[in-house]
Formats: sequence, C-alpha cells, structure tokens
Amino acid sequence: MERRALLLLLLAFLTPGAPIPVPPALKALSNLHLSTRLTSRPAIDIKYSIHYIQQKVDHFGFNTDKTFKQRYLIADKHWKKDGGSILFYTGNEGDITWFCNNTGFMWDMAEELKAMLVFAEHRYYGESLPFGANSFKDSTHLNFLTSEQALADFAKLIKHLKRTVPGAKNQPVIALGGSYGGMLAAWFRMKYPHMLVGALASSAPIWQFEDLVPCGVFMEIVTADFRKSGPNCSESIRRSWDAIRRLTSTGPGLHWLSEALRLCSPLTNSQDVEHLKDWITETWVNLAMVDYPYESNFLQPLPAWPIKVVCQYLKNPNVSDPQLLENIFQALNVYYNYSGQVKCLNMSETATRSLGSLGWSYQACTEMVMPFCTNGIDDMFEPHSWNLKEFSDDCFKQWGVRPRPSWITTMYGGKNISSHTNIIFSNGDLDPWSGGGVTENVTDTLVAITIPEGAHHLDLRANNAFDPTSVLLARSLEVRYMKQWIKNFYASLRKKH
Amino acid sequence: MERRALLLLLLAFLTPGAPIPVPPALKALSNLHLSTRLTSRPAIDIKYSIHYIQQKVDHFGFNTDKTFKQRYLIADKHWKKDGGSILFYTGNEGDITWFCNNTGFMWDMAEELKAMLVFAEHRYYGESLPFGANSFKDSTHLNFLTSEQALADFAKLIKHLKRTVPGAKNQPVIALGGSYGGMLAAWFRMKYPHMLVGALASSAPIWQFEDLVPCGVFMEIVTADFRKSGPNCSESIRRSWDAIRRLTSTGPGLHWLSEALRLCSPLTNSQDVEHLKDWITETWVNLAMVDYPYESNFLQPLPAWPIKVVCQYLKNPNVSDPQLLENIFQALNVYYNYSGQVKCLNMSETATRSLGSLGWSYQACTEMVMPFCTNGIDDMFEPHSWNLKEFSDDCFKQWGVRPRPSWITTMYGGKNISSHTNIIFSNGDLDPWSGGGVTENVTDTLVAITIPEGAHHLDLRANNAFDPTSVLLARSLEVRYMKQWIKNFYASLRKKH
Repeated sequence: MERRALLLLLLAFLTPGAPIPVPPALKALSNLHLSTRLTSRPAIDIKYSIHYIQQKVDHFGFNTDKTFKQRYLIADKHWKKDGGSILFYTGNEGDITWFCNNTGFMWDMAEELKAMLVFAEHRYYGESLPFGANSFKDSTHLNFLTSEQALADFAKLIKHLKRTVPGAKNQPVIALGGSYGGMLAAWFRMKYPHMLVGALASSAPIWQFEDLVPCGVFMEIVTADFRKSGPNCSESIRRSWDAIRRLTSTGPGLHWLSEALRLCSPLTNSQDVEHLKDWITETWVNLAMVDYPYESNFLQPLPAWPIKVVCQYLKNPNVSDPQLLENIFQALNVYYNYSGQVKCLNMSETATRSLGSLGWSYQACTEMVMPFCTNGIDDMFEPHSWNLKEFSDDCFKQWGVRPRPSWITTMYGGKNISSHTNIIFSNGDLDPWSGGGVTENVTDTLVAITIPEGAHHLDLRANNAFDPTSVLLARSLEVRYMKQWIKNFYASLRKKH
Repeated sequence: MERRALLLLLLAFLTPGAPIPVPPALKALSNLHLSTRLTSRPAIDIKYSIHYIQQKVDHFGFNTDKTFKQRYLIADKHWKKDGGSILFYTGNEGDITWFCNNTGFMWDMAEELKAMLVFAEHRYYGESLPFGANSFKDSTHLNFLTSEQALADFAKLIKHLKRTVPGAKNQPVIALGGSYGGMLAAWFRMKYPHMLVGALASSAPIWQFEDLVPCGVFMEIVTADFRKSGPNCSESIRRSWDAIRRLTSTGPGLHWLSEALRLCSPLTNSQDVEHLKDWITETWVNLAMVDYPYESNFLQPLPAWPIKVVCQYLKNPNVSDPQLLENIFQALNVYYNYSGQVKCLNMSETATRSLGSLGWSYQACTEMVMPFCTNGIDDMFEPHSWNLKEFSDDCFKQWGVRPRPSWITTMYGGKNISSHTNIIFSNGDLDPWSGGGVTENVTDTLVAITIPEGAHHLDLRANNAFDPTSVLLARSLEVRYMKQWIKNFYASLRKKH
C-alpha cells in the first residue's frame, strides 16, 4: 500500500464522518433492529456538564508557562460520594462530545458502579487547542502534540478533580478508552498507576509498532471480514484492482468509470486513479472497523452488519470488468449513501475533514508510526511493502518533522509489559486493529478479552438488543474486574485508617 | 532559613568540593584507619572505557531533531555473557567519572554478579552538555534539563547497549544511584519497568516534595547528628547565631569576626553577615551528609567521623561570644582545612563552583522544589519558614522560570507508589536526606533498608575495614535482592524458550 493510502487509513483511525440522513432504500433492512432496540430498553439519557481546566502547554519544559483550556465533560447523575467511583475517559483524536455520545457502556454501568463519568478531551482536538486557530500552523505550534503531554493533562485533571470536587478525593479512578484512546488508557495506567486503580483499553493496538506484529496482519483481518461476510466477496474486491487498471488505461475508460462510480469529480489521470484506489481501500477498512451487528452511525450511518450488505453486491468475481465495477459501486454506495440522499460520491470527503484528522496525521508522522503492508495473497489488496524512508520523507514534506519509529516501544515497553497490573485489553475479532492488540492474557492482572463477533470497540458502545452474546459476556466480565478493583481500593483504604 | 541558604543547601546536594591535600594536623587521627584499610583489602582497580551516544536534545517534542553527545563509562572486566547482568548507574548532578570513582559498591560486587558496569552521565553535567558552552545561557537552552529527559536518555542508552554490545541483549539490567541519582534509579524502575529488573535507590529523598514530609525534618536530622556527636555540640551551634548577630552589630565587631574566622574577604555589611550564616549553615549540613566512619574525600577531604572531630571544639556553649566564635572557627577549619594548607576560608567557594551546581540550581527552581524550614527549637538553626512565593520570585530572577512544586508528585506518585515493584530504598539515619526518604517497607518488593550508622549513601561506597556492621548488612541484603531479581529474570527467560 502506498503512503497516501496509509495516511488515509491512519486518518480514518477513528475520525467520524460527516453525518448523512438515514436512507429510505436500505432502511427497511434495519428497521426491525432499531425498533426492537427502542422497545427493549430506554435510550440512555446523555446529559453532561461542560468544564475547562487550564493546562500547561508544555508539561515537560519550563521555558514557557503558557496555558490553554482543556475541555472535559462530567456526568454525575449516578455518582455516590459514599463508595462511588470515577470512570475517566481518556479522550482520543476527536471532539470529546462525539466520544461521549459513542461510549454508551460508561453510561450503562454508571449506576452500578455509583460512578462519576468524566470525559477528557485530548489536546489539539475538539475545542482543546493549545494555540487556537494556529495550533496546526507549523511544527513549532504542533510541538506539544504527543501522547506524553496528553497523559500529563489527564493526570493533572484527575488531581484537580480530587482537589476541587467535594467527595472525589478518596475515590478510585478507572481509565477507559477505545482505539488510540484505549492505548492512552493502558499507557495511563502504566505510567501513572498512582492515579488509577485500573484501565479498560478497548481495541487498543499497542503492538502495532515497529516489528511487534507482522505489518500485514491489519489488512489480512480486513480481508477475512469480507471473506466471511459473503461468498466470493473478498475475491471480487481482489479482482477489482486489475479491473480498475484495465478500465482506466484509456481516456474513455476513465470517463466511463467516473460515471459508473458516480464520482463527484471525474478521474482525469493516473494520479486520480491511485487516489481512487486509496479511497476504495479506506472504505473497506472503515467497513471492517464498524461492522456492527445493528444499524449504527459511528463513522457513517450504516445498516446492521454492513459488510454483509456490501457483500450482497459482490457475489460474483467472474464478470466483465465493467460489471465488476458496477458491483463495486453498489458496495461503496452502502457506505457512502445509506441515506439515499447523496447525489455523487466524493473521493476527497474522507481525506480532509476536521482538525481531528490533521492532528492524527501529525501524530502518525511523529510518535504513532504504525507499519502496514499488503501482499495481495493473504489479503485482497494490491501488494505494497512498508517503506519507512518514503514515509519519513513525506512526513517531512507535510509537517517538517520526521517520525521516530522506535520511540513508542522505548517509552511504553512494547511486548515487555508484564510488570504492570490491572489493565483489561479487549478486542473484537472482526476489528483489523485487533491484529496489533493484546489478545492473550499477559498475566493474571493484564487480561485479554476477545469478542469473536465484535468490530472496533463494540464493547464500549451502549447495550443493544442485537448485541451478540460475546459482547455481553465481555462487558459483564469488564464490569466484574472493575468492581474488584474498586473493592480492593476501598479495602486497602480501610486498612490505612 | 532564607532562600539563599536554601539554594546553597540544594547546590550542595551532591556536588563535590574542590580537592585539597591531606592535612598533617588531623591526619594522625585517621592514619590508623587508612593503613588498616589498605592492608585489609586491596584497593579497587577502577578501570573503564569512555563512550558517547548521540541523544535527542528533546525526547518529548519533534520540532527539533538536534542531538548531543551523552558520555557513559563501561567496565566489563567481570562481565559474563553467560548468566551475567548489567549494573546501570543513573548519573546525577555532576561529572560521571566522579560518581564512578565514588560508587565502590558496584565495583565490589561486579564479580559476584558477573556484571557489566555502566555509568551514564546526566545531561547538562560533566561533558554531556546539549548546547556545549551555551547550555546554561538562558531558559531556552536549559529547557531540556528535566528528570524526564534524563530518564529517556537512560532508556535509549540501554536499548542502544542491548542492540550493539554482543551478549547484552538478553541480560537483566539493574539501576543504581545515590541521592538525586537514587531518585532517578527509583523513578526509572517506576516509569520504565520494561528496561530494568529492579533498582537500588540509595539515600533518595523521593518524598522531600510538597508536604509529603514536614519541611523541618531535614535540619532536625542535621541537628541530631551534632547533638549525638559530642556534649553540648548542637547547643553551641544554636547559640552561635545570636553571638554572630551581637558581634557584627558594630564595625570593629565585623572586623574582629572576619579575622577570627580567617575569612579571605572581610565582612563589610549586614548582607555579608547573612551570607556568612548561610555558609556556616551549609557547612554543618554538608558535614551531616558526609559523616562517614573513616577518612574520606567526598565533598571535602575529611577525617573519620568528622562531626565528632568538629564537636571536640564545641563542648562549651557557655562562653563569651568571641570565644564561641573562635571555637566555631576551629570547627569550620576541620571541614575546610583538613589539609592544613588553606591560608584563609573562602565563603564564596562552596557557593559557585562547577557547571554541576548551576544545573542543580536550575533543577531546584523547576521540578526539584524541596521545601525546607527551621524553627530553632527542634533544630539548632535560626528559624526560617518555607516561602514558596519568595522562592519562585528568586527563581524567576535567576533563571526566568518558575518552579512547579507539585509536578514531581503528579509525575512520580508521591507516597502512592505501592503498585511498583523491585525497588530497594536504602537510607542512613545520620543522613539528613533520610527525612525525605522511604524508610519503611511499602510492600514486599518495595523495601526499605536503614543503616543506623550511615550518612549519605554510605552503602554505595567501597567496602572499608571501618564500615559499621549495619552497612555491611545493608550491602549484603542489597546483593541478595539483586541476585534474586537476576535469578527470576533468567527463570522467566527460560520459561519463554
């Protein structure tokens, strides 16, 4: 895979798509799900208060004392000062209100754990911009966008809450996060164990660095999802790349394909064709991430089990090139036009969107260097090796910085994490990020929970009538661990007094 | 105590004094010790090779990719590739060769642990200057002088050694350090447990921050040392401050005192008198730190049990002011003129010396904010409260930075460190820094070793025939823990294969 695609893929790590209204065409497929869900349990009442804390722009240097406002949300409806707890969401690369709305699990268990919910926004995302509109101006302004600074923000915020919220002082704190936020939750417990009794790191690919896992594993899982979701589905996609190459080798072919895919901007040259392939690749990756068992709206509004829906159009790889690409269009249309309102498909839409994607692109170019590759054999993509040199040069061009690919393992330990305790690593087998995740117990207190029918941090989502049993089990196990941590905390507190 | 004295005190944390030849007068007292030591065991053969590694000036930001040369020393005479270990000295605020020469314990146990000895210099000290001669120019150049950057240097160095030294890859590493270096050893294990099997933190006052211990404890221990070392000794010192005040209230008095104390620069005003008191205070503090049972040359060349020698001159507090100050001179002379070669006592000598003290003064003004106070009742000093505001203003004047007094506890956990493992905290009861140290077991694997007859990290010094039993026991216990860590490491390594 080329760097461009890689970047797209990284950009799509978690960044939400622009919401599009629900489509009439495919809605029927999921209506039952939706209505069942609504009758089986009341929707969660997501109500929070918005707060700000002044944070040092640089926790690790004293030359500047400049501060910025970090946003955080608090929901304390079910919080009890007596025997309660604090569930702390370690915000990742996006607007914190969006994560807050997509982490129903915390809301679902708040009452049982007598918990105050805190959602902390990650610096350089949402409203928490250290230099306001200039935050992404250049590498000088971006210099303070690192995981270490983010963790320090979290640590200071917890100290602040304990000092200022009456009743919070002697309460156990549990960090929770998904995806990059899951990595932060795990790292937070590793680096600041005095702040937390434990962490739930959902779909956290903490091993997607250096050579800790094979670079091909991510795309192999994407491929497996499509293979399992319909006969010949992955094979159809595999063949589509050559078909695109053949079709776009002539001017009329370019024109035809642009029409066939209802592209908003027609393809005009070979660079556009590369962009097209990147964009289609990203779409399959995103579908693998959000292959949820019910209608949802995470990256895009989508039907239940969207890959199954997609694969209905990709049953036959042995068709003519034009027919295959017509089928590909139908498949893409599921992802981009579930609303049925979209007039054309916009290839640039997913590439540049919000500040969130800008920030993540910088992080991917500095600390978060995740090698990806494809070989076209074990996966359904065109073969592309991982080229650090090229990646580094592109980063330098874009941001004026060079990645430090081994820093994360130096800092956070790579596979050698067994001396830490009280971290749950949960992963869904459908989620391509599970390839870089911890999917086997490391020790008795560094435990792995796998969810065979789960996509990207399904366990963090709200309870749903269509949840597979495996995710219900996972959540119940997670709650059990957390209750144990809380119990141990209060037991040792009593011993001290 | 005033800030100035505080700074002096902090400057003296570990910085070596300029060596002065051994004095004929007091030499006799210790001759026996010295010769006994020399016959009872051979002197250690301190031979090392000098190396340099390119380190990033900023591990925590990507805006600059600038590097500097960090110096480190290696001694591998006793190292075995088969079943050996790596003892890693986490260098503190001074030239690493000096620490290397004053950490005989590592040399003494190298053979038993089949150990490679590594001594890593702390950035901004010795030769390891990120910006060469400009390193202390201003707060911009000093911005990368923090404990976090130093720990990251150590982590990168260990990775480098494991990658480049054949046989080092699968060996257990133990961090060792004394004083601030002991804090670094402990923090290194806390923050990078994947790099180390354990740490020996000798005389590491990791709790000398915020209000973790009473601010007066340090000077109370200094006082107790003098109280125990001779009749009326601490009382004589306690009375000296008023005597100084009375004597210096007139011009002729100032002149007399300057002569009586053989000061190189005569006292001319009240500011000089304050300086004098600071300087005398610092002398008592330093004596408490290096009150070793044998002739030594750590901060200064000194006789065995130097406070006892000092106290021989301070037996009678009920004498005239001039007589008391004559006695104080004799006492000071033990510390500053054991050589007998010194013509006058230089008050400015201990205040400004090497780059080391500059660096530590900056660190004390940023991260290493240690509150000290005296009340004149529980200690033998003039009463001075801890005044953060004044301290901060002075730091701003001197360095253009303001201290962040709660940062260290946020970062390293304060008293809440029980989730860490495999750290030995050793402290000598004579050492004033033991007041901020861990002197009781925290858990089974965070253990405290106390040495009743020990001053500042006596256990890290070479074996000596005059060592009290308590330090021999401490060292033997420390070796036992280290061997256990090493054994466990190899056991778990075998399990993996």
